Amino acid sequence: MAPHPFKILSIEETRIARDVILSLHTGNVVVDFREIYLQEPNKALMKQYLELEHSGRPGQSPHSKRPPRLAKVQYDIIGSDKVPEYNEAVVDVETRKRMKHEVIGKEFHASLTLWEFQHLVEACKESEEFQKAIAEFKLPDGFELVVEPWPYGGLDIGAENRRYFQGLCFAQNTNNGNPDSNFYAYPLPLIPVMDAHTRKIVRIDRLATGGKGDGLTAKTHSERILDHCTSAEYVPELIPGGTRKDYKPINIMQPDGPSFKVTDESLVEWQKWRFRVSFNPREGAVLHDVHYDGRSVVYRMSISEMTVPYADARPPFHRKQAFDFGDGGAGNCANNLSLGCDCLGVIKYFDAVIVGSDGAPKVHPNVICLHEQDNGIGWKHTNWRTGRAVVTRLRELVVQFIITLANYEYVFAFKLDTAGGIMLEARATGIVSVVNIDPGKTSDYGNVVSSGVLAQNHQHIFAARIDPAIDGHNNTVLYEESHAAPWDKETNPNGNFYEVRKNIINRSGGIDAAPEHNRVFKIINPHKTNPHSGNPVSYKFMPPPTQKLLAAPGSIQEQRALFTKHHVWVTKYRDDELYAAGRFTLQSQREVGGVYDMANRKDEVTDEDIVVWNTFGLTHNPRVEDWPVMPVDIFQVHFKPADFFDKNPANDVPSTKNQASVLVGKECCAEKL
Amino acid sequence: MAPHPFKILSIEETRIARDVILSLHTGNVVVDFREIYLQEPNKALMKQYLELEHSGRPGQSPHSKRPPRLAKVQYDIIGSDKVPEYNEAVVDVETRKRMKHEVIGKEFHASLTLWEFQHLVEACKESEEFQKAIAEFKLPDGFELVVEPWPYGGLDIGAENRRYFQGLCFAQNTNNGNPDSNFYAYPLPLIPVMDAHTRKIVRIDRLATGGKGDGLTAKTHSERILDHCTSAEYVPELIPGGTRKDYKPINIMQPDGPSFKVTDESLVEWQKWRFRVSFNPREGAVLHDVHYDGRSVVYRMSISEMTVPYADARPPFHRKQAFDFGDGGAGNCANNLSLGCDCLGVIKYFDAVIVGSDGAPKVHPNVICLHEQDNGIGWKHTNWRTGRAVVTRLRELVVQFIITLANYEYVFAFKLDTAGGIMLEARATGIVSVVNIDPGKTSDYGNVVSSGVLAQNHQHIFAARIDPAIDGHNNTVLYEESHAAPWDKETNPNGNFYEVRKNIINRSGGIDAAPEHNRVFKIINPHKTNPHSGNPVSYKFMPPPTQKLLAAPGSIQEQRALFTKHHVWVTKYRDDELYAAGRFTLQSQREVGGVYDMANRKDEVTDEDIVVWNTFGLTHNPRVEDWPVMPVDIFQVHFKPADFFDKNPANDVPSTKNQASVLVGKECCAEKL
Repeated sequence: MAPHPFKILSIEETRIARDVILSLHTGNVVVDFREIYLQEPNKALMKQYLELEHSGRPGQSPHSKRPPRLAKVQYDIIGSDKVPEYNEAVVDVETRKRMKHEVIGKEFHASLTLWEFQHLVEACKESEEFQKAIAEFKLPDGFELVVEPWPYGGLDIGAENRRYFQGLCFAQNTNNGNPDSNFYAYPLPLIPVMDAHTRKIVRIDRLATGGKGDGLTAKTHSERILDHCTSAEYVPELIPGGTRKDYKPINIMQPDGPSFKVTDESLVEWQKWRFRVSFNPREGAVLHDVHYDGRSVVYRMSISEMTVPYADARPPFHRKQAFDFGDGGAGNCANNLSLGCDCLGVIKYFDAVIVGSDGAPKVHPNVICLHEQDNGIGWKHTNWRTGRAVVTRLRELVVQFIITLANYEYVFAFKLDTAGGIMLEARATGIVSVVNIDPGKTSDYGNVVSSGVLAQNHQHIFAARIDPAIDGHNNTVLYEESHAAPWDKETNPNGNFYEVRKNIINRSGGIDAAPEHNRVFKIINPHKTNPHSGNPVSYKFMPPPTQKLLAAPGSIQEQRALFTKHHVWVTKYRDDELYAAGRFTLQSQREVGGVYDMANRKDEVTDEDIVVWNTFGLTHNPRVEDWPVMPVDIFQVHFKPADFFDKNPANDVPSTKNQASVLVGKECCAEKL
Repeated sequence: MAPHPFKILSIEETRIARDVILSLHTGNVVVDFREIYLQEPNKALMKQYLELEHSGRPGQSPHSKRPPRLAKVQYDIIGSDKVPEYNEAVVDVETRKRMKHEVIGKEFHASLTLWEFQHLVEACKESEEFQKAIAEFKLPDGFELVVEPWPYGGLDIGAENRRYFQGLCFAQNTNNGNPDSNFYAYPLPLIPVMDAHTRKIVRIDRLATGGKGDGLTAKTHSERILDHCTSAEYVPELIPGGTRKDYKPINIMQPDGPSFKVTDESLVEWQKWRFRVSFNPREGAVLHDVHYDGRSVVYRMSISEMTVPYADARPPFHRKQAFDFGDGGAGNCANNLSLGCDCLGVIKYFDAVIVGSDGAPKVHPNVICLHEQDNGIGWKHTNWRTGRAVVTRLRELVVQFIITLANYEYVFAFKLDTAGGIMLEARATGIVSVVNIDPGKTSDYGNVVSSGVLAQNHQHIFAARIDPAIDGHNNTVLYEESHAAPWDKETNPNGNFYEVRKNIINRSGGIDAAPEHNRVFKIINPHKTNPHSGNPVSYKFMPPPTQKLLAAPGSIQEQRALFTKHHVWVTKYRDDELYAAGRFTLQSQREVGGVYDMANRKDEVTDEDIVVWNTFGLTHNPRVEDWPVMPVDIFQVHFKPADFFDKNPANDVPSTKNQASVLVGKECCAEKL
């Protein structure tokens, strides 16, 4: 049987795509692969396919509507001039034909690969100039240099748009013999810059190390630059005194197994929910074709992009601005979750497929974990006359993936719940980005979290992409506000009335959160009406009113991240428009083809196939408590049914008392269950 | 040994307080008790006591600083004229002396008691006029009247300030023989009003039942007023089709027991946290003297008040405005948590003591539950060079209580965590307040959630009271904002800089949330400095920027709830100032002695003993999904250390892999653990 159109490419399909491309680029060229992954089918085809699928007749006849299996292939062609030319192609892996081919112009840069990071490390080793610069510092005995590759950020205005990488430099204490000793505690004030084409270090930026009042360039590069830095270990065997001893286990047991079912490594069914999950190198986990009790809710949901601009005014720190999805691929950076302790309970892992530079596919194991969890009380009512309490739990199904980007990590989760809600959660953790600061000084650019270590102020701004399908593909977005009403003898005689106003969004564009008006966005199906309320069926969300990008208008940081200009965007659907900051973010000079441009088309968006984008984030002025590894900061966006159902969809969740819960001192009894 | 000063009064102490009062009011009077509970000691005495306690020398000498054990006693004196006179007294239960006595003026009303509710039900039965009014309706066969007592809300301007109660009327289907059949689905358009002194029904308000465009008074009181209403059952045995069958148990097991320890039924120690928990009839659970690792964080933390004003413009609905703490006492309405399924895992319950109208004390069992829970990943870092992932969980200790107020419930929790955070959570659930609406109509005043049932728009606004003690009692509040900075060659050459501004709050007053500026409030100790950052040690919170009260200025709803005018208030500490909306909220005409008045003193609040108040809430325009019992809406306020510690306090949390978690299909293996 043919794979479902949303299923990720198999090892075999990936290999076919590779072979097709190799067969088309013969002669004296090298093909360096970057990514091969599923090119999702055009929506027009998928609509037909899904209609058949949900009516129980997928692929039923020779004239079936099954879309082609397509691979997106991203690769460099390197000819005799050694100048790589970046290509993107779409290959039909069934007919083994290249359906589309695009040579990307030099103004854009392909996403980085981990082997490019390795090139930087090697280039540093080979650079005499860099070695000389490092030798100016006398590292403590047993300390060794660590170069941490970063994307280059936005080019300075007027600079030649070659492909660069930059390295942040630290020193690692090897005296403890532990390769996980935390080197971030020992920052060195140098940034080597590599030209990715020549693989040469072309410049070494010397970093300011001053404090308040020292201006933009003050450097006190004493020989003993690390002597005032102190260790900051987080691996348990290196923590002074070890880990705490009174932390007793909490075990999540599901003796009857989980309530979910996974088939075909992609179809998930749980508590009336039914959806497909896929994974790609850029966005990580994606939900497709989300239904509740046979009714369509979402066509596709993903985290589309994020940007992390740093606010340290001293050059070259304006170039610290990561796009963690577009620059290197969130999916590429996904953790193998079975290696940690990332979920509790009964867990289903999903694998992905990645390729090396030779295009050879291999399994990227356990990149998504799926599990159920309890989130406290779901609904409760006690009849005070009879004393009868009926209480149910809020059960969630969690689709989680975690990415590591050098020092930092994000935990992303889609949480579907028994009350018909979908919550999108981002947790920020990992190690904050730090630079060296002179002894005893403090800074306007961040917080000194440990001696000699300045954690720079920065923002994280996420963009979620929601392609809704509320009881069908044609939807409308409106926002509803609650407003105080004027006193009026006829309409508000006692001053207690407030007015609920609805505003339909007619043209694609951006709009902000407005908690002071209780602004709620509703994605409605204008053709379906709730039988009780008479309102159109909808899902609603209240965008978190988090601070928008602070970088100045016209700055390189702002130009690259125009998607941050509004909390909510509504655009008209077009195939392949998946990325809030545009297809190419690495070293971009302006957001091109991102949500800002899509919105600017001013398309009609009422009763159309639309996409809703939500940007939210965190202005992160680090605390000392964020060091060495920061406790999670948690962000949540809640999508909830609003007159979508004819009653509380959790009304039939059992209120059975949990038999395993016990009083203190009776733990023994629970164990027997 | 004498009880700890924060420990609730024992049964015996309560009885002594009662006896002292009875002995003082002899002769031809009746003493009707309302409440007897701990009068917390003056802070000046407690500071001395706690200093000794934390230095390991409590009550060490005859000159020890142990404060007296005091009972607050609230009671009516009913003389021969039958007019109750409301009294409040403070009794020293050791010396058996009344230390303070206050006769409360008629302009204020004592909190209601449940037996006053019963009086309303009886008065309705005895009222000919009411019985006649009810008889105008032909209830379906087997349906019986239910009168739901409510506080009267705010008096109409100019009305005589007698003590009233109102009753909302419904009909219950008794054909199913189930006393928990949901009567709220059958609302009757009458509100009887009782004079609490005469216990007579003095008026019957006839409710409008019209829809949009019908104006304020349209009533279609047909004889068959309930015929278009339909059943809305939530007790499992009455749900058509029963509860879902594929919901498998999640068991939370703690084979080694919990990590917390409770001694003296009040002292809780867990993961470096140490605090006392108490319970009183008005606020429910209260945390006292919260320390982390021997350092003081909070002197007292509670939910102080909430108000629920309704926005239906049609009289008398402006009088639907509950103050769920001040009107009847959240503690009084607390659920017995062992009856439900309110916590999972290993649970410790706490009891309270309540009195009947005769002052006789009895145990109010299981009003607080204490348990540990897992809240996902706490911190994680993967060293991509070595592949080593270190991941810890975010463990929380939950102090929870749940209140039922007629149709509605709130789940309140204080959650202390392994990262030094304290989260205050409110979950709103229960049954939304509804009125009858004519067939086929919709309304500007709410949403039709079921045939004939209009759920009225309303707000919930909570006030949390935080009496901080950041490394000592004298603290200062500042708010920190992040602002875009102008381009400037010297200070912002690349436009990426943003400025962090600090504003100290010098005088008591109110200030709002400002998420657009990332406004964060820090409660600092100006005398203690973080060794790394040089900043004063602090705890911070970002007030949820929820919509404030919408009722018009000067309206009775607004005048009674002036505490809702700002998200954050800072006031100077005074003993006994615990209530955001003032001591007396029942039938109040204006907030008296609440946080608005406290703030208006314009006290100096830098480096002083201060109190911080946070108001937050929900504009609740009901969804159909909120019917019949609404899924929880969750509100959280996070208090987090900000340069309070010298590193992440969770750095030493073990990263041990949980041995009970298993792959799908391997559940059997986990069971053996």
